[in-house]
Amino acid sequence: MAGDSRPIGVFDSGMGGLTVLRALAARLPQERFVYLGDTARLPYGTKSAETVQAYALQATRLLLGEGVKMVVIACNTASAVALYVLQESWDPVPVIGVIEPGARAGVAATKNKRIAVLATEGTVRGGAYARAIQRLMAEAEVVQQPCQVFVALAEEGWSDTPATLAAAQHYLGPLFAHDNAPDTLVLGCTHFPVLAGAIRRTVGSAVALVDSAETTALAVAEALESGGLTTGNKGDGTIRFFATDSPERFARVGAIFLGREIDEADVELVDLRNA
Amino acid sequence: MAGDSRPIGVFDSGMGGLTVLRALAARLPQERFVYLGDTARLPYGTKSAETVQAYALQATRLLLGEGVKMVVIACNTASAVALYVLQESWDPVPVIGVIEPGARAGVAATKNKRIAVLATEGTVRGGAYARAIQRLMAEAEVVQQPCQVFVALAEEGWSDTPATLAAAQHYLGPLFAHDNAPDTLVLGCTHFPVLAGAIRRTVGSAVALVDSAETTALAVAEALESGGLTTGNKGDGTIRFFATDSPERFARVGAIFLGREIDEADVELVDLRNA
Repeated sequence: MAGDSRPIGVFDSGMGGLTVLRALAARLPQERFVYLGDTARLPYGTKSAETVQAYALQATRLLLGEGVKMVVIACNTASAVALYVLQESWDPVPVIGVIEPGARAGVAATKNKRIAVLATEGTVRGGAYARAIQRLMAEAEVVQQPCQVFVALAEEGWSDTPATLAAAQHYLGPLFAHDNAPDTLVLGCTHFPVLAGAIRRTVGSAVALVDSAETTALAVAEALESGGLTTGNKGDGTIRFFATDSPERFARVGAIFLGREIDEADVELVDLRNA
Repeated sequence: MAGDSRPIGVFDSGMGGLTVLRALAARLPQERFVYLGDTARLPYGTKSAETVQAYALQATRLLLGEGVKMVVIACNTASAVALYVLQESWDPVPVIGVIEPGARAGVAATKNKRIAVLATEGTVRGGAYARAIQRLMAEAEVVQQPCQVFVALAEEGWSDTPATLAAAQHYLGPLFAHDNAPDTLVLGCTHFPVLAGAIRRTVGSAVALVDSAETTALAVAEALESGGLTTGNKGDGTIRFFATDSPERFARVGAIFLGREIDEADVELVDLRNA
């Protein structure tokens, strides 16, 4: 088999998408990756759809300039508002977002057809998860909870501090404190897997936690197979990092999300404004 | 007295600077104000000095285009890295930042010459508060504590929730849990006055809290007087708002910081990228 050794492009507003890259690299250890964090303009989660679309187009242009064979939007907010725009713009390079895989996994996990989605303000306002879930399961009841403070807690590396537990209780306590509570919780922001421990302690062991990083990695693996795009034995598993601001902070905070050290010297500073 | 009825320009990365505007409007009720929140690119606190300087220059150009007689940088991060750049660029329009007034008030308040400064990562990294304080009091001992989670808590309006108290304990507990603790705490980010209650409960009543919004308003009043720029009886106290993203969110979150309702229709969307 010939194999396609071109890298897979992954982008996010910042470092949260590294949880997706981590899952991708674990599932596809031979593939090469190019990761772009638009750290000069993060967060996307509080910005308007038009602004996020413009930013996502610029990020995708940079990745295509690096010769990628597929683009993964490792950001829920950008997936929610820009997936279709990007898919239409660069056919035939496949573009995969995190919403659809997360919705599919949520639907597969629920038994009582009540699903809670934790996300940023932008993702919740756009309602993309609720629509994606209800396309697959029309009778599903979806509760969307914006959890903006979780983003800062995750970036600070406060996986399981008293403040994180208190914030989880604040956001999630009311959602799960009644008889008809959801039995499935979709982590609809790539930052949130870092807080999974505190979230689990708050909602209890009976609730299924869906991590869209894992489910997106699976969707990417399937798309590579079906498109004949796998690297085969030609890949070397290298990862290149680009950031639009402070390589130092990218390396330091990014390590929390990637789950391993990042050398600041391996992070290249780029300017997207003219991309 | 003739009076100078031109407005005072105030800018911040987002809504936090509205705590400064609130103090300004209370102290100078006749003056007109133009407030610009660069919400499409917030936060500045985690971005590099070069990036923040470029953004601050664009913000200032927009305010000058509105005919302001003075520019107030209602953002600690931008004050720390861009004040001198802006002062050199647009003489004779005076530019006032929040760092110098905060440092002055901190020095006036301390008795044991130990001052703690709470700020964003960017402000702490730049060290501007420590330098400003030590210029005024060479023997002062300054502890700088980055409190990035406080920004999100303030934007969520969580003035005094259990999560806010837990975060305050996490950041401040170790600073104040010994005999040589600071007796003065400078709130070195315009978001933080919203959390003053929780901070006060954490550090106790013996510590002086310095709110740089109040001290900046005083500095602006003095500069207007000494420069012959007061509006006299010509002013009407109007405030105009500009934001670079989502007027809806600006109005909603901004109300927390301004301490009164903001009508979304009064917020004009602007694009700074070509300013």
